[in-house]
Order: sequence, then structure tokens, then C-alpha cells
Amino acid sequence: MEKNCPSETEGKPIRCKAAICRSPGEPLVIEEVEVAPPEAWEVRIKIICTSLCHSDLTFWKLDMGPVAAFPRIFGHEAVGVVESVGEHVEELREGDTVLPVFQPDCGECRDCKSQKSNDCSKFPIAHYIGMPRDGTSRFKDSNGQPVHHFLFVSSFTEYTVVDVANVVKISSDIPVEKACLLSCGVSTGVGAAWKVAEVEEGSTVAIFGLGAVGLAVAEGARLRGASKIIGVDLNPAKFEIERGIFATSNAGKKFGVTDFVNPAACSGISVSQVIQEMTDGGADYCFECIGLASLMQDAICSSRQGWGRTVILGVEMHGSPLSINPNEILRGKTVTGSIFGGVKAKSDIPFFVKKYLHKELNLDGFITHEIGFQEINKAFDLLLQGKSLRCIIWMDK
Amino acid sequence: MEKNCPSETEGKPIRCKAAICRSPGEPLVIEEVEVAPPEAWEVRIKIICTSLCHSDLTFWKLDMGPVAAFPRIFGHEAVGVVESVGEHVEELREGDTVLPVFQPDCGECRDCKSQKSNDCSKFPIAHYIGMPRDGTSRFKDSNGQPVHHFLFVSSFTEYTVVDVANVVKISSDIPVEKACLLSCGVSTGVGAAWKVAEVEEGSTVAIFGLGAVGLAVAEGARLRGASKIIGVDLNPAKFEIERGIFATSNAGKKFGVTDFVNPAACSGISVSQVIQEMTDGGADYCFECIGLASLMQDAICSSRQGWGRTVILGVEMHGSPLSINPNEILRGKTVTGSIFGGVKAKSDIPFFVKKYLHKELNLDGFITHEIGFQEINKAFDLLLQGKSLRCIIWMDK
Repeated sequence: MEKNCPSETEGKPIRCKAAICRSPGEPLVIEEVEVAPPEAWEVRIKIICTSLCHSDLTFWKLDMGPVAAFPRIFGHEAVGVVESVGEHVEELREGDTVLPVFQPDCGECRDCKSQKSNDCSKFPIAHYIGMPRDGTSRFKDSNGQPVHHFLFVSSFTEYTVVDVANVVKISSDIPVEKACLLSCGVSTGVGAAWKVAEVEEGSTVAIFGLGAVGLAVAEGARLRGASKIIGVDLNPAKFEIERGIFATSNAGKKFGVTDFVNPAACSGISVSQVIQEMTDGGADYCFECIGLASLMQDAICSSRQGWGRTVILGVEMHGSPLSINPNEILRGKTVTGSIFGGVKAKSDIPFFVKKYLHKELNLDGFITHEIGFQEINKAFDLLLQGKSLRCIIWMDK
Repeated sequence: MEKNCPSETEGKPIRCKAAICRSPGEPLVIEEVEVAPPEAWEVRIKIICTSLCHSDLTFWKLDMGPVAAFPRIFGHEAVGVVESVGEHVEELREGDTVLPVFQPDCGECRDCKSQKSNDCSKFPIAHYIGMPRDGTSRFKDSNGQPVHHFLFVSSFTEYTVVDVANVVKISSDIPVEKACLLSCGVSTGVGAAWKVAEVEEGSTVAIFGLGAVGLAVAEGARLRGASKIIGVDLNPAKFEIERGIFATSNAGKKFGVTDFVNPAACSGISVSQVIQEMTDGGADYCFECIGLASLMQDAICSSRQGWGRTVILGVEMHGSPLSINPNEILRGKTVTGSIFGGVKAKSDIPFFVKKYLHKELNLDGFITHEIGFQEINKAFDLLLQGKSLRCIIWMDK
């Protein structure tokens, strides 16, 4: 059906509420912002719900370097409805239910055209504080000062503007709060197991770090038929908290984790020795979901000689090098990594949505909390305290 | 045809000539040795020709550690004829033309049964100074003292005893001196390109280290249809020598190398920057064929973000760690390694033989010298001086 009635706001700036972060690590403040109309190849989206991911926390705390920019609107997991589109946008129209995604899928560059990469080379990461094509902002605060974007998405606002390369149209059959999870963390984990590692039926898996991404790896590995899925967390406190979550929601079992290893309880032997014993020589697939070089090394040591494959998902934020014994690699091990779990947004996210609608992919278990937009700082507290997997933030509550 | 006449030597020790190394780095001495009859699952082979590989040099110079054992019979690239077989050996009989191979293919362990590994777990590397099943020797010198084996093969002798897991029957259509090359170095390089990297048609390749293994990678990449094959050597002197070889034999062109990079001539920029420029962002496949951690790092940096795959073939003999920036890996790069180029001896070597007989695989170009057994130390000099790729040593000359 052709669009007959353009929205009242089309082509005009929209004034709305946004949660702005003015200094690193400071609570967000809900302020009025002006959201410019979408320019060419851009889409303005009315956010329905959004959720908080660890990457938001990482950049929220960051006080140095070119990507530490304030004031800023964080948030990059969301679902919304297209309010209006800019020139040249053909694939979307007003009213479409969409998922904004930080990793562009431009469809034109060598990477997006290749089945082997999802690391769009048309829109490099350097522009992560503005729009991908020109680096500028579509947000102004009440003093008319520009507010920085975050990861090409900025979803902690009632309206945002996103490049068409960063938007995926999704079926309206899936509840929006479930779809929201596919915007970053859960897709990253499921994608890493499904697309990067290509976990095989009957194989063994070890997952280092049991946050939402780690549990999503477990869920992906379960879907692919892994027979043993070992969850590891190096932080005993966090591990105990997560055991609490499992005890309450039975999440571990739901997501396919079959065995737990608490390195704090491995007296005298290394976690890699424990995993080697549990898997008769090493896990077929290991995943590092935290971003610690030492844990990446543990993961590689825990993988099996001959064919063990370690996938690195965590971003090393301390700048530590990954030091490997070359002889570990020489005997047939592989180390690889991926941004966003190797997921190509426009083709893979609709596939994951189908898997959910066919009751194969468990998304429900990731939602531990739901709050209104006014309470957004509570979502930060919950994640910082390790009490939540995903907290859904409803914009209209 | 059933065997009717057992050889005169069957079941008895054989006295013959062998080139023994009595101390690290010392010239070999041709002495008389006694070669015991094959025990169960063993094969005694009359060597026709053998060749010298860099791994022989590495262990010949080694004066420390559990694998530095003397007196020893080196050599692990060879072709021979079965003289007799031990109990339980069903797949071979007297008169068969065979290739001994250092990497076992037992056909029984998880690794040998899997298509993903060639790293036999039944016969671990610790036994490399004796027979794989019991670690003992089949050689005695003229004083009755045992002489150590090397890499389960020991081919610098007129007769040797090898486990059936380390022997491949080959077609008698292929000239033995050509087949001999497939026993280690050339199979390692071709296998790395063919089986480990799975080089794709039209792709770009960078090879670090242009010895026989590196040129065999180039040959494998050429066979797989790579469009650009860049040869790199960090040692300017060696590089110049190899340019000399190419000038004489045109080996570079034969093996598919399309471009050469001499890092000594890259003033002001790194070799990885040069390769990135030559390949529009990085090579699709990089191969490290020397065994230097710093060169492995260069190879990884030279590979393309998104899908670049680095294969490590060189054994790091200095014990240096491989230090990687995790962010290099995170954006879709892969690092992997393999012993013997991922080649499963019993199935893949006959495949390579066919490729040679069909005039697809170039083996002839690797043979730069041919000498008689008495001159064996000359083969060491040629390889040490970087003057040879492969020197064939004929036992009956």
C-alpha cells in the first residue's frame, strides 16, 4: 500500500525527551532535545523500547580518547517505528517496525557484499560519535548545542535518526521487547556460535563470561546441537550472583549451559586444565565474552589441539596484548574474532526473528527487568551490580 | 598376487650403511649399522632416495632438551621399497613403493578419524627419538649401541624401520625423486594453501619466507587460482640468493609467485603497510613459513580486516610468544596453524601424486641439486648457505 498521508512531523524537527549523559560516569538526565529531520539515506525512528548493553556502560565510563565525547545520547539496542525517511530511502517507509543496529550493512562495499565479513568498510568506526556519512549530529539540546550520537544508533531518546545502513525492517509478529534483544548483545552471542564458530552437533563448548552475550553464545550453541556447554566466570562474586539468577529463573538451563566452572573453586589447577579434563582433551569451541587478554589466553589453552576454535567477542579495553604460545596454534588451533558475532544485520536478524517465532530461539529468558524511561538510571545500576541480563526500558512508561 | 618368496633378509637383522650424527652440528659419518626386523605394525624399507629438509637442520643443531638425542640417524623425506613387514601389517607388502611420513596417520584415534585434524593423538610427539609405539630403537651401531631415530622416519640409511601409521603406498608411475618431495616440505606448503587456508579463486596471498615450504605454499595457492601471490623474505641476503635461484631456474614464476617484497627495501614503511597497499587493504591469506614470532605478527597485520586468514607453518624455536593486538583479531581476522600443512598422509599424498601425474602440480622445480649418499654433508652445506631448495640424495650413488 502506498503511503498517502505523510506524518505531521515529516520534514520538520521534532522536540522530544532524551536521556543525555553530560560527563563520563554521571547519571543520565532526561532533557528536551530537538531531533532534525532525516537527511538523504537516513531514517527518523520513534523508539518504542530500548535496553542497556555492556558497551553502553563501557563508553559511558570512558573519559579519554577520540570516542569519549560528551554530551551524548547512549543506547544502541532498540525497536521503533519509522516516523519519516530521507531522500533515496527505498526499503523503508513510515510505520515500518524496525531495529536500529550499530554495525552497518550498507550492501555496497566489498565486506557487505562478501559472505565472509560483516565489518562494513564504507562506514568506518571513527565516525561513531556522529552520523556515518558525514560525522555530524541530528540532536540539539535546549540551548541549541549539538549532542553526540553513540554507535550510529542513540536510542535513549523518544526519536532518533539512523542511517538506512543501520536499520533492519522486522516482522511485526515478534513482541517488540523480544526483538529489541536482537539489536546487539543476543545477536552477537548467537551469531558467534552460529556463524563464526559454526558449532557442530555433538560438540563441546566453553564460554568465558556469563553475561547476556555469553548466555546468548550458549543459546546459539544449544540451537546448533552442542552436547556439552560449559559456562565459566573468572569473577567469583559475579559468578555467585549469576548462580542466583539461575536459581531464580533457571536461565542457565534454558540457555543450554550444561556445566558450570568457577575458577575460584579450582584450587591448584588452572581453568584450562579443568576444561580439558571435562572435555577429554579440550573444548571444540571456546568463546571469550569479557574482553580480558588473560581470559582470551585461557580460552585458547582450553580448546582442543587439532581443531579447537576460539572466538573472541570481548573488546580488550585495557589495551593489553594477547600473548599466545605459537606452538599452541601450530597444532591445529584457530583463534578468530568478530564484531557483532559475524551477523549481517539485514539478512541474519530476520532469520533470528523467524527462529524465535518458530519457538526455537529463547529470547524471553534474557529479560530480567522492565522499567519506564524516567527510571533509566536504574538500568545502569542493575547492570553495574551484575543483577540483570537485560533490562527493557519502555519509552511510553 | 600373493607373495610366494619371502626375501632372504626377512625376519633377520640387516647390516647396511647409515649416515650417523654423533654430536650436535657435527658432519654426519657413514657407518655400518644393524637394522632390526620390523616388529608388529612395523615396516622395514629399503630407501631409494631421500632429501634434506630444514627440520633436519634444526634438530641437527639442537644441543639441549629431551628431543636433542645423539647418536642419531636424521632424514625424514624419502621414498623406498618395502623389504618386509611385521605382524598385523595388512595394507603393505614386500616390493611396494612407499613414502615414509613423520606425521602418523593411524586411522584409529579421534584426530585421524576426523576430517578436521591430522594431528594423530595415538602417537604423541614425545616419542620422536624412537619408534612411535614403544619409543625404542631398531638401529644399533657397530659397537652394538642403539642409535636414535628421528621424527619416526630416519631416512639417511640404506634400510629403516617405520611404523605402518607412518607409511603411505604410492603409485609407481611417479618418479621417486619427485615423490620424495611430498614426504614433508612440499606437502606442508601445498597442504597449508589447499587444506588449511582453502585459498579461493581470485584471492590475494602473502607468503613470509621463500624456502621450499614457502614456494610450495605459492604452488598450492596457484593451483587454487589465487590472482596475486606475494613472496616476502625478511632476510635481505637470503632474499637476494633466492632471486638468484629464480633468475637461473625461473622458479618464482613456476611456483606462482607474482610479486616480491624485500622488507630491506621498504624504507620508512612496514612490510604490512606495503602488502596492504598492494592488496587494497590486506591479503586474503597470509602464511608464515619461517618460525619467527615477529614475522607471525607481520603476517597477521598484513591480512585483511573482515576475513584475512593467517596460517602459521613455522615452528618458533626461540620460544618467543606471539603477541597480538586483540583488536586486530576482533575485526574478523583469523590465525591458525598446522603441522604438515593439515595433510592426512594416507589420503592426501596419493591425491597430490595424482595432481603431479596430471601435470597440475609442479614438483620438478623444487629439485635444485642431486648427489650420492657418500656426499650427504654437501646437502647440509647447500641448505645452510641457502643455495638449494631440495637436494635429492640417491642411496645407490
